[in-house]
Amino acid sequence: MSSGEDSLISRYFAPLATDPGAFGLRDDAAVLTTIGEDIVVNTDAIVEGVHFLPDDPPDSIARKALRTNLSDLAAKGAEPAGFVLTLALTSRDETWLAGFARGLGEDIATYGCPLLGGDTVSTPGPLMVSVTGFGRVPQGRIVRRAGAQVGDRIVVTGTIGDAALGLALLQGRLASSNEEPLIARYRVPQPRTTLARAVREHATASMDVSDGLAGDLAKLCKVSGVAAVIEAAQLPLSAPASALLEAGMIAIETLVAGGDDYEILCTMPKTRLASFMAQATAAGVAVTDIGEVIAGDAPPRFVNADGQDIALQRFSYQHF
Amino acid sequence: MSSGEDSLISRYFAPLATDPGAFGLRDDAAVLTTIGEDIVVNTDAIVEGVHFLPDDPPDSIARKALRTNLSDLAAKGAEPAGFVLTLALTSRDETWLAGFARGLGEDIATYGCPLLGGDTVSTPGPLMVSVTGFGRVPQGRIVRRAGAQVGDRIVVTGTIGDAALGLALLQGRLASSNEEPLIARYRVPQPRTTLARAVREHATASMDVSDGLAGDLAKLCKVSGVAAVIEAAQLPLSAPASALLEAGMIAIETLVAGGDDYEILCTMPKTRLASFMAQATAAGVAVTDIGEVIAGDAPPRFVNADGQDIALQRFSYQHF
Repeated sequence: MSSGEDSLISRYFAPLATDPGAFGLRDDAAVLTTIGEDIVVNTDAIVEGVHFLPDDPPDSIARKALRTNLSDLAAKGAEPAGFVLTLALTSRDETWLAGFARGLGEDIATYGCPLLGGDTVSTPGPLMVSVTGFGRVPQGRIVRRAGAQVGDRIVVTGTIGDAALGLALLQGRLASSNEEPLIARYRVPQPRTTLARAVREHATASMDVSDGLAGDLAKLCKVSGVAAVIEAAQLPLSAPASALLEAGMIAIETLVAGGDDYEILCTMPKTRLASFMAQATAAGVAVTDIGEVIAGDAPPRFVNADGQDIALQRFSYQHF
Repeated sequence: MSSGEDSLISRYFAPLATDPGAFGLRDDAAVLTTIGEDIVVNTDAIVEGVHFLPDDPPDSIARKALRTNLSDLAAKGAEPAGFVLTLALTSRDETWLAGFARGLGEDIATYGCPLLGGDTVSTPGPLMVSVTGFGRVPQGRIVRRAGAQVGDRIVVTGTIGDAALGLALLQGRLASSNEEPLIARYRVPQPRTTLARAVREHATASMDVSDGLAGDLAKLCKVSGVAAVIEAAQLPLSAPASALLEAGMIAIETLVAGGDDYEILCTMPKTRLASFMAQATAAGVAVTDIGEVIAGDAPPRFVNADGQDIALQRFSYQHF
C-alpha cells in the first residue's frame, strides 16, 4: 500500500519530527503555534555541484542545509522555531539517506529547531536540498537589513573567508599546510544562534554573510541608504587564512568576496558596542568591530592601516 | 555591484512582493504576523519531467506550484497567508521568467496569498519549483488526516481523474475528442480555497487528493485507524472522463490511482452533510458524497452498484 516516498519518510524523517505540530509527518501540513510573536520566515536551497560537492558527506550536507537557514534567522534576531525540508533526490541510496538523516537529527537537537514537514521528489538532475526555516521574535522586533545609521559601528562575528578557502582547497585551486579547519568551515557552517537576542537588543541593521562580506555589506548599505568604510587590518581572520594572505598565496578578495561564511554582519551605535560585546562573550561568539557606517551611496570602501583604499576586483560570489 | 540573482529578483519577483512583511524581497527573511492564530505550513515541490512537462507554459508552471500548496492549505481548513518560493533554474531565460512571474502574480491576486520571500539557485539539472505555503486557522482548529470516525460519510470536491487523463493525452498514451479540459486540469489545478471554512466547521478529517483518490484515502484511513467503502458509481467524473470510461478506453484505476486531482477529500458525520453541502454551494464548489467510513484496517474498498468489490491493481502515483 504505502508508496516508496511514504516508506522513505517514515523510515528516515518521521523519527526526527517529534514536535507535536509535525503530526509525525503523517499529515499534509504542520502547525506552528504562536503566542504574541511574529514568525520570521527564511528559505535557502543548496544544490550539488553549486553549493556542495558531490562527495561531501551526507551528514554535512544536511547540516549545511539547516544551518544556512539558522544563520539567517539568528541575523534577524529570531529564535529557531522549526523548519520544513524539500529533498530532490536522484536515487534512493539508503546509506546516503541514513547519513543525511543522522546529521539532520543531531542538528535538530543541537539547535532546538524541530522538523515540521517536507516533500521528497525524484529528479534526474543534481541533488538539491531546500529548507524553509521559521523563527520567533517578539512582535515587531525583527532586525532588518535596512536601519544602519551614519556613525554606527560595523561588527562581524567569527572569522571571514575560511569557507571560500576551504572550497578552493577541495577544488585543488589552492594548497595549505592546514587544510582541515578551512574545509570544515566550507562544509559545515556555525550559525550564530546564541547571538540572536543580542542582535535583537542592539543592532540597527543585520544580515548573515553568505555571498561574501564585501557584497553583503554593500546590500545592507544600499537598503539602509548609507555607505561604509572597513579597516582591512581589523578583519577577523583565522590562523590559516592569515598565513595564506601573508604568504601572498591569496588576495584580500578571496576572503571578502568569497561565499559561505555564515557569520552575522550588523551595525549599531558606538554606545551599544560594549553591551553587545559582553553579551556576545557570554554567548560564546567572537565579534569584531571592523568599520563604520558613513554617508553616501558608494560601494563599501576597504582601507589599509594608512587609510588608503584597497581596490577590490569583485564583491561577491555570483550565481548567474 | 548587484549580482545576477539580485537583478533577477528585483525585476521579476520584487514587484509581486507587495506585502509589508516581505520587505520588498530586500532582506534575508520575511515576517508573518499573527493574532491568536495558528500558522499552517505546507511544502510542495514540482520538478520538470516529473510533475510538469518541459514545454508546459511557464505561467501554468507557476500556477501549479502555488496552487498545489493552496490546495493543501484549503484541505486543512486554513486561509491563505503567504508563501515563499525556491526556483532552481537551468538558465536565465527572460521570456520564460516573465511568463512565470506573470502567472504567479495573477494567482497571488486571485487567491490573496502574498509572496513573502524566496531563493533562486542555478542548477544544471531539470527546473524545479518549490513552494512553502502558509495558512491561518483559529488556534487549535487545523483539520487533520486523523479524525475520521466509523459511520462518517466520505466527500470529495470537483471531479476525479481528469488530470491523470490530461497527462496521458499530453504524453500520447491516450486519445480523446475532448482533450482541452483534461489537459487544463493537469496543467492548472483549481484549489478549493473557498471551501476552507466549511471544512474547518464540519470535517472530522481532511486532505487534498494529489497522488490518486484511492491511495490518498488509504492514507487518511490509516492515520484515522479506520477503513472505507467507496461506491464507484458515485465518483464524480467529468463528461470527457465518463466518455472514455464508457468507451472502455480507460479503467477505473486510471481515474482513482492517477495523480494531480487537487480536490479535497474529507469525512464528516452524516448529520453535518446538509450544512456542509449548503456552504459548498455558496462557495461555488461541487461536492459529492462517495462512500462511508467503516471499521477495520483493510485498504479502501471500491464497490459497484451491486455492492461487489472492484479489484484495483494500484492505488496511487509512485515517485520511487
